[in-house]
Amino acid sequence: MAAEIVNPRSDSGTRTGHEGAEEPFDPAFALHRGGKMAVQATVPVRDKDDLSLAYTPGVAKVCSAIAEKPELVHDYTWKSNVVAVVTDGTAVLGLGDIGAEASLPVMEGKAILFKQFGGVDAVPIALGTTDTDEIIDTVVRLAPSFGGVNLEDISAPRCFEIERRLQERLDIPVFHDDQHGTAVVTLAALRNAARLTDRTLGDLRAVISGAGAAGVAIAKFLLEAGLGDVAVADRKGIVSRDRDDLTPVKRELAELTNKAGLSGSLESALAGADVFIGVSGGTVPEAAVASMAPNSFVFAMANPNPEVHPDVAHKYASVVATGRSDYPNQINNVLAFPGIFAGALQVRASRITEGMKIAAADALADVVGDELSADYVIPSPFDERVAPAVTAAVAAAARAEGVARA
Amino acid sequence: MAAEIVNPRSDSGTRTGHEGAEEPFDPAFALHRGGKMAVQATVPVRDKDDLSLAYTPGVAKVCSAIAEKPELVHDYTWKSNVVAVVTDGTAVLGLGDIGAEASLPVMEGKAILFKQFGGVDAVPIALGTTDTDEIIDTVVRLAPSFGGVNLEDISAPRCFEIERRLQERLDIPVFHDDQHGTAVVTLAALRNAARLTDRTLGDLRAVISGAGAAGVAIAKFLLEAGLGDVAVADRKGIVSRDRDDLTPVKRELAELTNKAGLSGSLESALAGADVFIGVSGGTVPEAAVASMAPNSFVFAMANPNPEVHPDVAHKYASVVATGRSDYPNQINNVLAFPGIFAGALQVRASRITEGMKIAAADALADVVGDELSADYVIPSPFDERVAPAVTAAVAAAARAEGVARA
Repeated sequence: MAAEIVNPRSDSGTRTGHEGAEEPFDPAFALHRGGKMAVQATVPVRDKDDLSLAYTPGVAKVCSAIAEKPELVHDYTWKSNVVAVVTDGTAVLGLGDIGAEASLPVMEGKAILFKQFGGVDAVPIALGTTDTDEIIDTVVRLAPSFGGVNLEDISAPRCFEIERRLQERLDIPVFHDDQHGTAVVTLAALRNAARLTDRTLGDLRAVISGAGAAGVAIAKFLLEAGLGDVAVADRKGIVSRDRDDLTPVKRELAELTNKAGLSGSLESALAGADVFIGVSGGTVPEAAVASMAPNSFVFAMANPNPEVHPDVAHKYASVVATGRSDYPNQINNVLAFPGIFAGALQVRASRITEGMKIAAADALADVVGDELSADYVIPSPFDERVAPAVTAAVAAAARAEGVARA
Repeated sequence: MAAEIVNPRSDSGTRTGHEGAEEPFDPAFALHRGGKMAVQATVPVRDKDDLSLAYTPGVAKVCSAIAEKPELVHDYTWKSNVVAVVTDGTAVLGLGDIGAEASLPVMEGKAILFKQFGGVDAVPIALGTTDTDEIIDTVVRLAPSFGGVNLEDISAPRCFEIERRLQERLDIPVFHDDQHGTAVVTLAALRNAARLTDRTLGDLRAVISGAGAAGVAIAKFLLEAGLGDVAVADRKGIVSRDRDDLTPVKRELAELTNKAGLSGSLESALAGADVFIGVSGGTVPEAAVASMAPNSFVFAMANPNPEVHPDVAHKYASVVATGRSDYPNQINNVLAFPGIFAGALQVRASRITEGMKIAAADALADVVGDELSADYVIPSPFDERVAPAVTAAVAAAARAEGVARA
């Protein structure tokens, strides 16, 4: 009923409902009126001399130069610094499949975070199709105009195929932030939590609640980074080789994860586990948290309701993190994606490799430095050291991995 | 060889060529370095309170409201003010088919003109396909994110079909500026030229050189506005019913135009004509200009080389206009498209009708007012009265024609 809080035709400060009665003023609607972003010229267009350089006839020389030597497009257009934030509106926040238009406020929000935190220009592209092939073909056709593609809020399992096939076809980075952004920040927090408790990633066994985009990506990425073991639970329990109801993505996950050979419920898997990572919503019973190993970590990242309330988690765990800004240790993607794209764009990377993501996580973890404590395993999104550190690390890793082109 | 003027890897002020030798410094390249535009947040993102309104959790309420009541997308996102500037790079300036990337500097230029002159946000979308169906499908899928579509530099005859089919499928304005922008400004100049010489449009017979996007659109639009007669010439001469080499678009043109039943060369058609409109390039012999009726108008709009040099035209014609900024009476699309889209967006028009375009032309002509003279039949692009006048006229016309939704 939120739509009825404001009168969409009213431009005045007084917000009235359908019946003309005064309704509570909602600051989120007030802030969103007219959208949250704009474009601006970065060159002057004040007189005909300006126009003759920025537009005809001067622009023709620049066009001809690019036609002759295509890589110059990075030098002389905003392609060098602009990312398409692409969604099909099927998995928006916790709201699910709300469609392209209704997803736009999130995509605009993402775009302004790109700008604010990474200095990266970003354009919201909410597509009027949910067909995998159509999404891929559309983004491929858009690609000449962009330096990178940030996929956002596309439902699993289509998101995996869309990202993979797009990256195969494009020579600019394609990055599904719900997967990899979350995974990068999680790894950074986990590295610092391990350091705090004098352990390495290899010492840790984790259980992830949620086998969607984030859960799958976190599991794979933490293993890549050296985690001892991880089991992933979906609604039917632990993803294990003995299950016969798995999608292809989860079958692959069953092969890669769960060295311990667990099966059954999430709760049973938590017994003796070192790390809980929640990216599912739902609730984990206190008894299951209590059954975890000593010095456990609880990363209950569902928003706005963590799978384990932080107050409960603190009774048992050494380190507690959530997705919320009103508790310490917020696992927030904005710590990663602006710097990751800024670094990739800086060196014209053709893709974002595992090594670049690990470098991002390490740089993010390192920002915490000597101030490390149980309530400070991950920096604040507003820590101004974060984006430059991630940017530099990602650019260096791109060079090291041979995907940089500048 | 323009690409070799600068060193694309150099970020310093010193521009060196491939051999390290100093090369002439070209201001167009210097201006284009890094592109000509950026995005900016229009709401604060300084602290976590800001973030909780502009992004999660506050944004979710706005998304839900739009999901429930789709038209709210215009109230709460930048869709209300953003246009996609879409090209396939096939007919860029006078350069022809230079491809998507090489067209980007023009699309960026267009985008900043939208902003500067109309306050309209615009995003360059240079597509990596030249297939008509693929272009249409792609733009349809992009449409949820935009309030309008400005087609640009797409070659004829595909541009006609693309615009028509897109407008059939979309409920936001689709406007091929190379056609209609040019036509609107031409009509405005012609109205004032007629007024200056105490004639009406119905008194005039025009000859158009060029049967591409601009020529076809100008011919149709001037007839719509009441022009007495018009003949259009392509490279093979006057488009007439007795020709058997016409494309479907030109066959339609042969039906609509050329009441006088002319055939043969452009030059022969000019004998006794009142108006010459050049949108083709090429050169018209002085003798043909001399053969026009008394009080003729010569609008030689090819850039940078008008079909008739203004000095030659002035020997015979009462009013001379060109596409150049260094002569009086510049026929420049920037006089039309920013205000046309601003007006259409202001009232959420579903399309841009003939009536809206005629209203735009009339408003543009009216800006000249009592200052009308042979050297001033059309305002300067930098006349600040232009965009508000066009915007208001287009918005009012949209309401009158029943295509406004706000």
